[in-house]
Order: sequence, then structure tokens, then C-alpha cells
Amino acid sequence: MLTPALQNCRFLKAARREKTDTTPIWIMRQAGRYLPEYMSVRTKVTFIELCKSPDLAAEVTLTAQRVLGVDAAILFADLLPMLEPMGIDLEYAKGEGPVIHNPIHSPADVDRIRELEDVASLHFVFEAVRRIRRDLPADIPLLGFAGAPFTLASYAIEGGGSKNYVKTKTMMYTDEGAWRTLMERLSRSLVRYINGQINAGCQAVQLFDSWAGCLSPDDYKRYVMPYTKSVIDGIRPGVPVINFLTGNPALLPYLRDAGGSVIGLDWRVNLADGWKTVGHDVAVQGNLDPVSLMADLPTLRQRAKAVLDAAEGRPGHIFNLGHGVFPEVPPEHVKALVEMVHEMGQNA
Amino acid sequence: MLTPALQNCRFLKAARREKTDTTPIWIMRQAGRYLPEYMSVRTKVTFIELCKSPDLAAEVTLTAQRVLGVDAAILFADLLPMLEPMGIDLEYAKGEGPVIHNPIHSPADVDRIRELEDVASLHFVFEAVRRIRRDLPADIPLLGFAGAPFTLASYAIEGGGSKNYVKTKTMMYTDEGAWRTLMERLSRSLVRYINGQINAGCQAVQLFDSWAGCLSPDDYKRYVMPYTKSVIDGIRPGVPVINFLTGNPALLPYLRDAGGSVIGLDWRVNLADGWKTVGHDVAVQGNLDPVSLMADLPTLRQRAKAVLDAAEGRPGHIFNLGHGVFPEVPPEHVKALVEMVHEMGQNA
Repeated sequence: MLTPALQNCRFLKAARREKTDTTPIWIMRQAGRYLPEYMSVRTKVTFIELCKSPDLAAEVTLTAQRVLGVDAAILFADLLPMLEPMGIDLEYAKGEGPVIHNPIHSPADVDRIRELEDVASLHFVFEAVRRIRRDLPADIPLLGFAGAPFTLASYAIEGGGSKNYVKTKTMMYTDEGAWRTLMERLSRSLVRYINGQINAGCQAVQLFDSWAGCLSPDDYKRYVMPYTKSVIDGIRPGVPVINFLTGNPALLPYLRDAGGSVIGLDWRVNLADGWKTVGHDVAVQGNLDPVSLMADLPTLRQRAKAVLDAAEGRPGHIFNLGHGVFPEVPPEHVKALVEMVHEMGQNA
Repeated sequence: MLTPALQNCRFLKAARREKTDTTPIWIMRQAGRYLPEYMSVRTKVTFIELCKSPDLAAEVTLTAQRVLGVDAAILFADLLPMLEPMGIDLEYAKGEGPVIHNPIHSPADVDRIRELEDVASLHFVFEAVRRIRRDLPADIPLLGFAGAPFTLASYAIEGGGSKNYVKTKTMMYTDEGAWRTLMERLSRSLVRYINGQINAGCQAVQLFDSWAGCLSPDDYKRYVMPYTKSVIDGIRPGVPVINFLTGNPALLPYLRDAGGSVIGLDWRVNLADGWKTVGHDVAVQGNLDPVSLMADLPTLRQRAKAVLDAAEGRPGHIFNLGHGVFPEVPPEHVKALVEMVHEMGQNA
């Protein structure tokens, strides 16, 4: 199904753990607020308007890939809009994070969460994918993405960000049946949503479990892993899945068991140790501390080199930050990082 | 120096990895907002007034130990007041966290941080220790505590809580000299402050590195570990030190290298794995997920049992939560947990 240019691109070769001319790199949140080209589009529309406008979402996705020279583009989208057709009322308040007006307050509230039988209501996402794929260089893959079931469930329960996930864990511990129903509906919906992105033109996908680091290994294994696994098992065979979790290196063995041909590592673990933990029979992505981009360029270079060195020249390393790039970061440092990795990765 | 009653108390025996009749337990933040007796005192004074009133600080410390039946009391105090005589202007805004009016904005600002040569300005802490020790049961040890150098430095630099520690890490990465100067001044001050608590009557102390989990293992080792180690090395010999860090199990080998006869584990790691990582030649403390206290009692019991089981009957386990107890927790659940651990710990 892939063109030869895509079949042989750096990113997909590395995802298959094949040798590449240099280490591929892309940056989580690469089309973000640190980039003047992005901010200029944002003077015209709000964040959620941008997410729902295929033309503008395509524009910021393509621009970021082009100005940075990264080896993959990632669809500009948000984790939460897929919850709207499931029955969650979202609002993106100005300058604030998303607000959920009807969070899941009690186990009984789980009943009003509808499984996404049909993903047509998310047409704006698939339309953006088609436009990006049409205009992207022939040798640059397009990544789709979605939130992992736990991260989506905790958004829906907490109603927004959370420090301690008290409400989410309380439901998990006190009403396991309601918890499992919610996670099943999310997982089945995610499979359709992600395969929709692939059908529209994505060559790989990333699952973000941005909040699962608040869990103990036993809780992750019991309450979360089966659902992440069912999502990954349902994704169209042959499409690389990057399974990414942040905040707790002790979960890596179970993250690996949940699946994915690439495991995303955050910066809290040394990349060599993390790769050893998940096994050298999967590829890894990561894992520079994003704050490194605030340092002077010689320091940034040293820190990038330490990550490359930790890969020990083994095929199957996709360079990235350990989490998304911050708004405060100088865009020229991000561009410099991409050049450094391409240069130093040749000898890696 | 210790009375026989203290010498042979459960907590100190476990800290020395000696066999005990049952597993000792205390709860981080046990004199906290979840407890009606504490809230009743707080109707009369603000948080910081309470910290600075030896009589009231003693009262809430003693009450929590008595109503819970825990095996140790911990001084009621806050991490930050020790920064005031060092040149940091603190304010505890109503209903908010602490605010620092003159955070360390630039490396040059480090110059105005004065090393604490004399801890007399913190007399209210030592006075509270004396009053608590006077009125505490003879077989209950009193724990002192302080923030570890990284956590104090990041408060002073960020000016309050932080999500990504951008300012702290930026200084660490871009001006290593200023960073080391700051960490040295904090470490030397901490040694005097902690030994002051011990001289006033504490039988053990805990260092809280509540925020160091945001660091990679390499950064912790290079920028933080030497200072935590210098604090622990400076504490009066023979006094058990609980070295506690939260948020990143991959730091445990280095936390152990920094020292402490007891390593505090948060809930992100399985206790058996964590103990193996730090070595069975130190004691461990922890590590129930604090949200477990929101569950029904049978579930709480199962979860507490899982933590006890993970200790595998090995002497040297001090039961605790993996972090502080939340205000939302029902106080009767905390009392029930103490009873459950004392009962189930007999067969552990």
C-alpha cells in the first residue's frame, strides 16, 4: 500500500528497526505555540476552530514539518474532540485549557457515554489528514494520534487537568464494573477513530497516555493495560503504533506488554535502560528533556548527543523530546536540534 | 542517648531492620486538613501562624499521633520557612499555596541567598519539637523533616508550584556555577537546621524531595545527588534518615547512593521491586497510593495487604502512603488503615 518513497523513508525504516542513513527525528507538539508561523494562524482563529478547520490544520501541520526539516509530520488535532460525539460537552475557554461541562461524576454517569459507532462526526479530522497527505513531500510520513483510554477517561471524570486523579482512581477502586464499561466504550471508539485516520492517509499513529504515570504498576496492569492493548490490537495490521506514556518509568514493562512496534520513552528514564527494559525487539522513540531546548546551543548539543549515545548505534531509535515542546522555547533552537541530530546521528 | 522505650520502639527497630511485633505505620501529612481536630485548630489561626506557634504546632502533632494510634509523630511544620532567614520573602495567601515575592530570577540573584550560619531565627520549630517530645508517649519517636535541596531550590526559583520546572532546569543547564552555589548554600543550611531539630528532641528525620521526580537520572546524578548526599552526611551520626523522593522510580538507585538508612518509596513502584532496586541492606518506607483511602474498607484492606505482602516478611518495612494524605479522605478510613496494618502486619 505504501509508495516506495514512504516505504524507504527514515522514520518508517527506524520504526521497523532497519538501518537508516541517520537518526530520524520529529518533535512532539512541533506545530505549537513556540512557532511564529503557528501563532500567526492563531491570530485569526481559536485553538478549537483551528482543530476543526481542515485547511488551517493542514497548513500548520505542513508548515511545521517544512520549517523544521523533521522526518515526520503529525496531524494537528486535539485529544478531546472525539469525546464530543460520545456525549461529553467540551468548551475551550480563552487562554485556558479545555473545560468539560458534564464530567462523569458518578458510576451511573457512565451510562450516558455512547460508544462511537460511526466516526463520520469527526470528518474534519479525516479531511485534514487527506489535505496534509496530498501536500506533504512524498518521502515524509504523516502520523495520526489519539489519547489512550486512561488519559481520555481521566479527562472525562476529572473534567479537566488534575493533580492527584482522586476522582478517577476513586471510581476505579470503588466501582470496577462502571470503570470497565467506560474503558471498553472508549477503547472500541478509539479503534474506529484511529483506523479512520489511517484510512484517510496516515502512515503511523501514536497513542498518548499522558496521565497514566500517576498509576502504580499493579493498577496500570489491572485497570488500564487490557484496554490500551485492545486498542493497539484493533489497529490496522502493518501500521506502526507508537505507544507513549509519560510520568512513570516503572510502567514500561507493562506498556510494552500492551503492544506497539515503537515504545515512546519520556526523559525520566535513561534511553539505554528504557530500551533494555522494553526489549531490543521493539523500536523506541525519545527522549530528550524538553527543557534542554532552553539551554545554549553547545549545551543542547551535548544533551542531544547523550541521548543518541544511549541508543548505542542500534537501529530502531526515533529521536524526539520526552514530551511536547514548550511555548517559551526559541524556535531556532528546535531547528538547530533537528540539524544536530541529523548530523550526529550519522555516526551514532 | 535514647531511652530504652525509644530504643526498642517499633519504628526505630524497623529503621534498623530489626524484627518487630508488627509492621510500624505513620502517615505523611497525618496532622492535616482531613482531620476534624486539625480543622478546629485552623478556625483560630492561618496555616503559617500555626507553623510558627510552638503550642499549637505541638497540639496538632500530638493529637494526630493519639487519635490515629500511629507508631511515630511528625513535627507539624512547613518546608519553606527555613528560606526566610536566607533572604526569600514568603507569603501564605489565604486558601492558596505559598507565594514567594522575590524568586531567584537570574543567576545573579543567587548572590542574595544567604547561608544560614545560625538557626536561632527558626526557634519556633525547635521550641515545638521540645514541647512535642515532652508530651509524647515515651515509646513514640518524633520525626523531624526538611525539604531536600532540589525541592527548596525549585521553590525559590519558580516562586511557587510548577508544572514543568522550566526556570529551575534552565538555570541548571545554563549556569551550572550559580546552580552549584545555590545548592551548596541550601545544603549547608539544611545540615544546621536538621541537626537543630535533632538537638531539640527528634529521634529520626525525613528529607522530602517532593519535586525531584521531574529530573532524568543523569540530571539527578549530576546536579542534585551530591547535595542531598552532603546533607545526609552532615546529619548527626546514629540518627535514622528517611530519604524520600516522589515522581520517578528510575531515580531510586541514585537516591540510595545519596544515603539514608530508610528509603522512602512512592506508589509508582511496586514495593518489592523498589526494595530490590535500593538493596535489602537499607530499610524502606511506603507505599500505598493515597487515593486508596477513598475506597471502601474491604478494598482498602486488600490494597494495604498487597503492600504488606510486597515486603515479603522482611524486617525493615515502615508502612506509609506513597505521598501525603488528601483533605478529601474520611478520617475513619485513616484510623482503619492503621488498625489493618497493625493486625495484618503481625503475619507479614
